[in-house]
Amino acid sequence: MRLVLIGFGNLGRGLARALLDKGRALHSSYGLRTKVVAVVDEYGAAVDDGGVNLRRLLQIVEGGGQVPDYPGGKREKPAVEVIEEVEADVVFELTPTNIETGEPGLTHIQRAMRAGRHVITSNKGPLVVAFSELERLAEESEVEFRYSASVGGAIPVIDLAKNLLAGNEIRAIRGVLNGTTNYILTRMSKEGVPFDVVLREAQELGIAEKDPTLDVDGIDAACKVVILANAILGMDAKLADVKVTGIRNVTPEVTKLARETGYTVKLVGVAKPDLLEVAPKLVPLGHPLAVGGTLNAVTLEMDLAREISITGFGAGPRETASALIGDMISIHRSVGAR
Amino acid sequence: MRLVLIGFGNLGRGLARALLDKGRALHSSYGLRTKVVAVVDEYGAAVDDGGVNLRRLLQIVEGGGQVPDYPGGKREKPAVEVIEEVEADVVFELTPTNIETGEPGLTHIQRAMRAGRHVITSNKGPLVVAFSELERLAEESEVEFRYSASVGGAIPVIDLAKNLLAGNEIRAIRGVLNGTTNYILTRMSKEGVPFDVVLREAQELGIAEKDPTLDVDGIDAACKVVILANAILGMDAKLADVKVTGIRNVTPEVTKLARETGYTVKLVGVAKPDLLEVAPKLVPLGHPLAVGGTLNAVTLEMDLAREISITGFGAGPRETASALIGDMISIHRSVGAR
Repeated sequence: MRLVLIGFGNLGRGLARALLDKGRALHSSYGLRTKVVAVVDEYGAAVDDGGVNLRRLLQIVEGGGQVPDYPGGKREKPAVEVIEEVEADVVFELTPTNIETGEPGLTHIQRAMRAGRHVITSNKGPLVVAFSELERLAEESEVEFRYSASVGGAIPVIDLAKNLLAGNEIRAIRGVLNGTTNYILTRMSKEGVPFDVVLREAQELGIAEKDPTLDVDGIDAACKVVILANAILGMDAKLADVKVTGIRNVTPEVTKLARETGYTVKLVGVAKPDLLEVAPKLVPLGHPLAVGGTLNAVTLEMDLAREISITGFGAGPRETASALIGDMISIHRSVGAR
Repeated sequence: MRLVLIGFGNLGRGLARALLDKGRALHSSYGLRTKVVAVVDEYGAAVDDGGVNLRRLLQIVEGGGQVPDYPGGKREKPAVEVIEEVEADVVFELTPTNIETGEPGLTHIQRAMRAGRHVITSNKGPLVVAFSELERLAEESEVEFRYSASVGGAIPVIDLAKNLLAGNEIRAIRGVLNGTTNYILTRMSKEGVPFDVVLREAQELGIAEKDPTLDVDGIDAACKVVILANAILGMDAKLADVKVTGIRNVTPEVTKLARETGYTVKLVGVAKPDLLEVAPKLVPLGHPLAVGGTLNAVTLEMDLAREISITGFGAGPRETASALIGDMISIHRSVGAR
């Protein structure tokens, strides 16, 4: 399986490391041999039909270099050209999320599909902006399109709902979908410290970003609600359809009172056919959504199984690589089965 | 897909009801048409090549009748004869669990496989007694063998581990695998009531059985540890390999002290290559295993995704039907893909 990596930040490098670690196991367990034939970052490309030496490329980039510093690398080679010119089976789209335009990921994915490449992405932007268009394009182009890594990091909630719980009608999805806000709320609840103090500490620890708006105002969680609603409930939702309230107004008094009465405050995203919402909610202690720290959790409400919840780490390069590689194996299996 | 149901107790009737409810959806979503061509209980069989009328059979049995009271039903027709004589694609083995001999389920499953039928079971007995033999026989007989319903009720933990987290090396499994003991421990912890008082109430509510030994002494959980170890970790474990401690010695003082220090007491099953164990353990509040009531939860520990947990209702006819139907769709997909 010939792979192209578009984006070589934390996630791209995490995937490269996992591919190095897992190469042998993927072959022995699934008969899957992978070869990365091109890697692209914002400065240019490394292309090698015989396989890019990932160990060497990681050394270059982690030593402060750029992808085109790789031997034979091409400066200012646009990603779209690599996508169209380099013969490959799968394109990994791993550029940063832009929830306004979906770019540059949206164009990368469209070009890759039209060129007949299967696409795996962690990028919420294109999914929030053009979910149904991309699903349609994948179908027309007869390629597979997977985006497990876009919601819940390592948690394979979309495949859980669509494949493993296939006998069920899924009626509602509720989730703690943002690790940063969960960390902040957990610490506020445990230590009685105000929001802005915990936020500052989370920023120092690298758990919250310098501009924390997307996280603390619930927008990142709302993007995930949109993706879950579209992927699992078959809706055609956009970000503007989600009623969003963040956690800035949650006080230590509220978290303390909740705790004393057997509850905990969580930023919960809800996707139901008649409601898309993100807001702080009281969750009973002992409920699967009452997870602490940076954990994410999603509860699926169904007719037969009633409630199934899945919990795990919602971010991190290794965890995201788990989802990306899971998608790759899944494509290998379904393409192999044709 | 022609189906045979062996066993028509709570689980068999739950499956029949779910098949009635879901017939149309299974066809429209997956192109899967099902027909139950035989049902067997301990008194005899109902066989109908054109399809047993499940609604009618349910009325008969729920009105106090037996399966052979169905029009044309056969008294004292042994299950093994039905399994071998009635042409079918899938045999559902749903008889009660016997963890000493695995019978009668073990013989039913072996005969079904040798007759070329795919097998789906909820029965822990045959899996605890002869896991690797049955896996081998399925392979030799070129049939599919699924047993999602044997662990965790509606929770598809085996497929989660083997398919959705396929890129990961799974190193350990920890689980709250028995709903009855979880209910008892949750109530002891919340209300400070002693074990035997809560047990008696649980028996009155039908949550615990009259002879609660298998549950409260940890044996049911140990069976599930054996199945998880064999199915997910590729071990060849038997029940005798599991170190088992039940919950009889857990006092309200212990559960109270745990709670005051941010923990909760759970009966936890552990499966690791070097340890198979069931024992009461302290679990931090906010950890995915700290689920209350009759919920079950399983945490998988892996190299890439670190920890993924899945939670749901571990028992009940509807929940079990979710797992049985999920297995049936999975067989339909994998056989269809050949």
